[in-house]
Amino acid sequence: MSTVTTTFLVSGMTCGHCVAAVKEEVAKLPSVTEVEIDLASGAVTVLSGEALDTVAIDAAIDEAGYAVVR
Amino acid sequence: MSTVTTTFLVSGMTCGHCVAAVKEEVAKLPSVTEVEIDLASGAVTVLSGEALDTVAIDAAIDEAGYAVVR
Repeated sequence: MSTVTTTFLVSGMTCGHCVAAVKEEVAKLPSVTEVEIDLASGAVTVLSGEALDTVAIDAAIDEAGYAVVR
Repeated sequence: MSTVTTTFLVSGMTCGHCVAAVKEEVAKLPSVTEVEIDLASGAVTVLSGEALDTVAIDAAIDEAGYAVVR
């Protein structure tokens, strides 16, 4: 099984609670196996079994209360 | 029944999640009826039926992951 790595930037996260909120929503996306977030840079790295849908990512981040920087 | 108002400053809160975490812990203190937090200043205002114990307040804020400024 192959693993897809997707990285994007999220703005507005200011603390560990923010990181946890984003991580929780991203982890719900289909085939996601791991979510790593660097609070300082806002970088979110997601490992998944299949390619992630950009619209679904944006919706997940919005659900957490933040926005993807594109 | 009388109401006691206690106000103190908490450092380190950066977002609404932090406010919620502090509010949750303070609300557990005995006789507390209302907790109001101003994120910008860090001011926490607590209404309670009885005077609050300072040690208990400090412990609650510590439990939430923050510190009272004294």
